[in-house]
Amino acid sequence: MFAIHRRDSESQARAGVLRLAHGDVRTPAFVPLATKATVKTLEPRDVTALGYEMVLGNTFHLFLQPGHDLIAELGGLHEFMRWRGPIITDSGGFQVFSMGHGTVADEIKKSRPPRSPQGPSRSGAVLSIEEEGVEFRSYVDGSRRFMRPETSMEVQAALGSDIALVFDECTPFNVPRDYTALSTERTHRWLDRCLAWHAEHGPESQRVYGIVQGGVFEDLRIASSERVAASGCDGVAIGGSLGADKAQMHTVVGWATAALDRVAPARPRHLLGIGDVDDLIRGTELGIDTFDCAMPTRLARHGVAVVPEPDARWRVDLTGARWRRSTEPILEGCHCPACAEGYPRGYLNHLLRLGETTAGRLLTLHNLHFVARLMDDLRDAIGAGTLPERAAALRNGDSPASL
Amino acid sequence: MFAIHRRDSESQARAGVLRLAHGDVRTPAFVPLATKATVKTLEPRDVTALGYEMVLGNTFHLFLQPGHDLIAELGGLHEFMRWRGPIITDSGGFQVFSMGHGTVADEIKKSRPPRSPQGPSRSGAVLSIEEEGVEFRSYVDGSRRFMRPETSMEVQAALGSDIALVFDECTPFNVPRDYTALSTERTHRWLDRCLAWHAEHGPESQRVYGIVQGGVFEDLRIASSERVAASGCDGVAIGGSLGADKAQMHTVVGWATAALDRVAPARPRHLLGIGDVDDLIRGTELGIDTFDCAMPTRLARHGVAVVPEPDARWRVDLTGARWRRSTEPILEGCHCPACAEGYPRGYLNHLLRLGETTAGRLLTLHNLHFVARLMDDLRDAIGAGTLPERAAALRNGDSPASL
Repeated sequence: MFAIHRRDSESQARAGVLRLAHGDVRTPAFVPLATKATVKTLEPRDVTALGYEMVLGNTFHLFLQPGHDLIAELGGLHEFMRWRGPIITDSGGFQVFSMGHGTVADEIKKSRPPRSPQGPSRSGAVLSIEEEGVEFRSYVDGSRRFMRPETSMEVQAALGSDIALVFDECTPFNVPRDYTALSTERTHRWLDRCLAWHAEHGPESQRVYGIVQGGVFEDLRIASSERVAASGCDGVAIGGSLGADKAQMHTVVGWATAALDRVAPARPRHLLGIGDVDDLIRGTELGIDTFDCAMPTRLARHGVAVVPEPDARWRVDLTGARWRRSTEPILEGCHCPACAEGYPRGYLNHLLRLGETTAGRLLTLHNLHFVARLMDDLRDAIGAGTLPERAAALRNGDSPASL
Repeated sequence: MFAIHRRDSESQARAGVLRLAHGDVRTPAFVPLATKATVKTLEPRDVTALGYEMVLGNTFHLFLQPGHDLIAELGGLHEFMRWRGPIITDSGGFQVFSMGHGTVADEIKKSRPPRSPQGPSRSGAVLSIEEEGVEFRSYVDGSRRFMRPETSMEVQAALGSDIALVFDECTPFNVPRDYTALSTERTHRWLDRCLAWHAEHGPESQRVYGIVQGGVFEDLRIASSERVAASGCDGVAIGGSLGADKAQMHTVVGWATAALDRVAPARPRHLLGIGDVDDLIRGTELGIDTFDCAMPTRLARHGVAVVPEPDARWRVDLTGARWRRSTEPILEGCHCPACAEGYPRGYLNHLLRLGETTAGRLLTLHNLHFVARLMDDLRDAIGAGTLPERAAALRNGDSPASL
């Protein structure tokens, strides 16, 4: 299912192609979020026109609303949302647990007191975590729901995604090694249950990725990588808490991919929830094949455009008063539908102040175009043997080629 | 500026072309609203692709936010919103007065007690109506603002619209003849002031439409039509209270267009704020050349699709639970971007329940496509001498040709 065409000689990077039930995905690739069966503000034809070959749907959200049975009745997720290419579905593990634990970002940004490391918060929507699965309260109707690893696989089978992810426990950042070790063990047992369910009931054309956990502990990450690779899953995702900052995140991802380079060098790898420009560059060097992240689309809806400015974290906030009278386009020389049309920043600022959805749409088109061209550039550079130079240039604020 | 190519032999309908500074508009035509400098949920390229040649911006809203000075500084409304075709701007009269008076629809639907016929409500945002102009409170920042007829023309000159409308007083439905007569007289004096200002300061390429008022009183409507025609304005808009129901509205519009057929047969006519399917058909027969209305776009954002079902007022509400599991497209055989892609009603229902903006976009594309094809059909029928048959068929639920 995965052909690696070229490996970079100076890093772990590789360029290849995923052959999936609904088509090919050239890697390394970014995968836009279609969490609730839509890439927010866009139509599938827009996403295709931007050059994307795969989107990511979310098991947890679609399980609750509108329900996988309904989607199956309407022909599966592809038919339902009219996306003809491959779809990867997240397992719902992250969403179930982030409701109870809070995310790392929450912990850091809001400086909340750490939650109990023994388990989920009592005040969260997670009601209990057991060997069997997780009980939680639906955010849609307040009902009690139970998700087993098998439930997640069953939902993903009903959705008919090209790639399903196994159900895992996502521990928060600040839990001790002991809890992380126990949790990772349970995630491994859940991996086996997911694969067993899929072997018996899953669609034959659906590929299954295991998920490497292990928090920020090197030995746990390495052991988890080996354990997941040994399970015989089709691909490997890297999830869970990756650290407090980018440096630690890159280190943690590197432990996993180095281990995978030894034990499963030919299997495709997905990095969950990571998509800042510098992280996409570093992740590619670390041998990640696919990435998903809310960043480009969520920032867009909040009025933030991705631009080649490393000192500004590759971001410019167009909601600010300083842009009210600006005739500048979002990004000079960019060929995205918004920049090609030349909408002035002053106009986008006007639309953003009014809450007009067209602003979110134009910025989503821009941000996803930027990220798509970045990934094209990295992929081409691997093929041409020029990744070190291109990665350095992009890190220094060079625009992606063919922007 | 207006060439009539063909007049229908059995009605007052005519087919022609408006030649404006930014291009031609084939008539009869519907003009989508870009009230605040955007056709909500769409990009200009979408509006063009649907076949529209002109959009309508609003003087009142753009005066308050972001301000006409800012738009002028950024090159005018066309440059600002990147719409290359003609733009007509409403004068702001309706908006200023509807804040104080409430609209006819408000009065009828909400069965509110009639407001004082002597003037605007004290509780409304209109603070005073004087011969000089109207003082009102800005809904943006609560400040007191004053709009003279000259202010409206100055704003429209700064916006650089192809067609400006004169500033008028819109009386509510239920005011007595005496107040309507006095108000219509004032509107006529304001018409003269608008034309005088424009003759001296207005852009030469900008055309100016007078506005016929007169409420639901035949003699006042006829007198107003004659008075407006005599003013030498480039075109004539029909505004104000048109009655309590469609039958009365058609009668009132007929009084005006019959009078105009006598005194200004070659001048273009715009019907303000009317756009239901049956009203577009009847309005065309009555000799209206252009129409604007929030209907197709506003309904879309509320989940209502325009369909050829006269008994259902040409509407179907896709937010209802009955569509949850529907695999039907919005409208079988329709070639709009949403129907051509085949999005099932069950999917649109899902997006609408989530408040996803893509739903509003897809329904806006559908509704505007339907209305554009309806106007094409009516225009072609006038040209072919088959308007009576086509109008009858469309009234009976026939789909527009080339839908």
